[in-house]
Amino acid sequence: MTVSRRKLFGLTGAGVAIAGAGAGVAVHESGHDPAAEQVPFHGPNQAGITTPAQDRMHFVAFDVTTSDRAELVRLLQDWTRAAERMTAGQEAVEHGATGGGEQEPPGDTGEALGLPPSALTLTVGFGPSLFDGRFGLADRRPPALAELPHFSQDNLDPARSGGDLCVQACANDPQVAVHAIRNLARIGFGTVSVRWSQLGFGRTSSTSREQATPRNLFGFKDGTNNIKSEDTAALDEHVWVRPGDGPEWMTGGSYLVARRIRMHIETWDRSSLSEQERIVGRTKGSGAPLGATDEFAPVDVRALPDDSHVRLASAENTGARLLRRGYNFTDGSDGLGRLDAGLFFVCFNRDPRRQFVPMQRALARDDAMMEYLEHNGSALFACPPGVRPGEFWGQGLFG
Amino acid sequence: MTVSRRKLFGLTGAGVAIAGAGAGVAVHESGHDPAAEQVPFHGPNQAGITTPAQDRMHFVAFDVTTSDRAELVRLLQDWTRAAERMTAGQEAVEHGATGGGEQEPPGDTGEALGLPPSALTLTVGFGPSLFDGRFGLADRRPPALAELPHFSQDNLDPARSGGDLCVQACANDPQVAVHAIRNLARIGFGTVSVRWSQLGFGRTSSTSREQATPRNLFGFKDGTNNIKSEDTAALDEHVWVRPGDGPEWMTGGSYLVARRIRMHIETWDRSSLSEQERIVGRTKGSGAPLGATDEFAPVDVRALPDDSHVRLASAENTGARLLRRGYNFTDGSDGLGRLDAGLFFVCFNRDPRRQFVPMQRALARDDAMMEYLEHNGSALFACPPGVRPGEFWGQGLFG
Repeated sequence: MTVSRRKLFGLTGAGVAIAGAGAGVAVHESGHDPAAEQVPFHGPNQAGITTPAQDRMHFVAFDVTTSDRAELVRLLQDWTRAAERMTAGQEAVEHGATGGGEQEPPGDTGEALGLPPSALTLTVGFGPSLFDGRFGLADRRPPALAELPHFSQDNLDPARSGGDLCVQACANDPQVAVHAIRNLARIGFGTVSVRWSQLGFGRTSSTSREQATPRNLFGFKDGTNNIKSEDTAALDEHVWVRPGDGPEWMTGGSYLVARRIRMHIETWDRSSLSEQERIVGRTKGSGAPLGATDEFAPVDVRALPDDSHVRLASAENTGARLLRRGYNFTDGSDGLGRLDAGLFFVCFNRDPRRQFVPMQRALARDDAMMEYLEHNGSALFACPPGVRPGEFWGQGLFG
Repeated sequence: MTVSRRKLFGLTGAGVAIAGAGAGVAVHESGHDPAAEQVPFHGPNQAGITTPAQDRMHFVAFDVTTSDRAELVRLLQDWTRAAERMTAGQEAVEHGATGGGEQEPPGDTGEALGLPPSALTLTVGFGPSLFDGRFGLADRRPPALAELPHFSQDNLDPARSGGDLCVQACANDPQVAVHAIRNLARIGFGTVSVRWSQLGFGRTSSTSREQATPRNLFGFKDGTNNIKSEDTAALDEHVWVRPGDGPEWMTGGSYLVARRIRMHIETWDRSSLSEQERIVGRTKGSGAPLGATDEFAPVDVRALPDDSHVRLASAENTGARLLRRGYNFTDGSDGLGRLDAGLFFVCFNRDPRRQFVPMQRALARDDAMMEYLEHNGSALFACPPGVRPGEFWGQGLFG
């Protein structure tokens, strides 16, 4: 399934070589081509949750600027059509970047012309504020979409938090992810405005057993015991909203929690290897639990320090599991001579009140790692189920 | 030449799979593997200038915080050793992330463990302010390293401009580029502090005839007529500093100009296709000059509109050519509902007084595209020649 934009729009000429820009047509040693890959848009669940985590992310939160419910519905319809097209490697709208009238603005901004689908997924979510009454949705708000509580040591910046809507774009080529977000923002001009956005340059989680565990900016493997897309029973138990969990429109959906976690990497880098490993609860080289040698060795949390991250975050401690899908970020510097870098934590869970919230409460209170972290952005979104052909994102909510 | 960090440090275990994180071991359709590729560090010129432009960039400008010349020299020596190692896919120092003492801070921050060299290049430059007298270098300042003049419509942010030193890290994996900058910053703790840094997610220039021309965030192919690494006569004429051009220590070096150019993409996206093409001077689909059909057709600048970008930037207009090596960026949003996105323009030239400055003057004054641009960061650096084994970056300046 490698429909490229250039094939669809008949571009020719020496400049349209197979390489596109950059890693566009890279082929993994396994023969798997991460650029050409196309992830189906339609299905019972939205893509971008259990999809094997792509390499790059562009995440955006929007404020809705209209109070007209019909306009909001039209936006979701238009976005769905554009998402169907862009995830298939096509331009955002028909008559895309160059095919429309010369005297019209192009219907697509063009920077992804010639690039393959790159496993692009687009995942939409609805924030608690969307249910505040402006759109007649107050009585459809799921109880699980309760505002997150204040956590100990939170230092949240409102300009990096909240939002009425979100779109998570993940792809193996960042140009494809940025293009998708930009074109959705453009389609939404006059209806939504960008509240905040975050670029993630490298995935920090595996969501498939076929993926190697990547490293976060503390230099440690992250997400070894993540729920994987192959663990369908665990997904049903911990990720997907089930019938009876709340309003029917969320069945097959999931709750997304995003946290912008600045890492004080300069301080971390001055702590000893043994201290780092004690804080994490794993060895730095192999990623094995302390005392073991294999990354995937079973974790005996009772053998780990009480305040170690892995112990506190474990299902044994909180009874909760999450599907983590975060990304490393670097956003320039902070004016104090340090890089502004860290983890853009994203997780999906069936009910944050029983999963993310107790886990984060335990971490915020006791995790030795907190000394090196600053949570400065936070948001929660209800991601509706997937759409069938002809439907639109959130149709069950507005129907 | 694919020496990976994990091989050198004997990491084992199931988690150290061949894939590393993300596009680590991607192989181009041509059989070329952009992750495994290793660019030689040593040579008559620094790497990262004519090296075929890698996909991603992390650029950092430092202020020197010591006034001790010997400390500065020691830093450049330490940086050179670390750069030799990291560009070879090794950790920043011996006894890297996990091989030192348990009670010592690791010598490498670890997030690139297991990742191949990814064509990493590190290129150092010296800003005009380094020659202000603190280090006894005032009489060694090249006349060509004159502060850039104010250009019409400049709106420069001092926090995104200038710097005593710069390091440009380019790689096909952003995690590798970020790791390199972070470890150099760490090595420099107490001697330098980060003044500003910029992540570029996608290259906007080709610097080799083997590369397809990428697109900028206006959706146009950028850099079709760039100087290519194969054009050795043009490189000698326009890029490399020659004997007699100025102080001998810069022979074989080049001057780097960086400009952070915010693009008003929302406004651009509302202009018609014909207006966009008229402003650029090329067609959007193929990238061909207006009136032609092939991207690489000769450009007859007299046939283009007087205020078109390609005409004004042409060698016919200004007599100047540059080696461009810029990157697309997206840095969140601007608080006004718009993405903060654009082009991090980087060019290399033999004498900016005769090349970049007249070209930018012409563009700033007359280019129709300026309505959609805001230059908000600017810096100039003298990049010394390459180093031989045992030498250090800038040895000729300090020797």
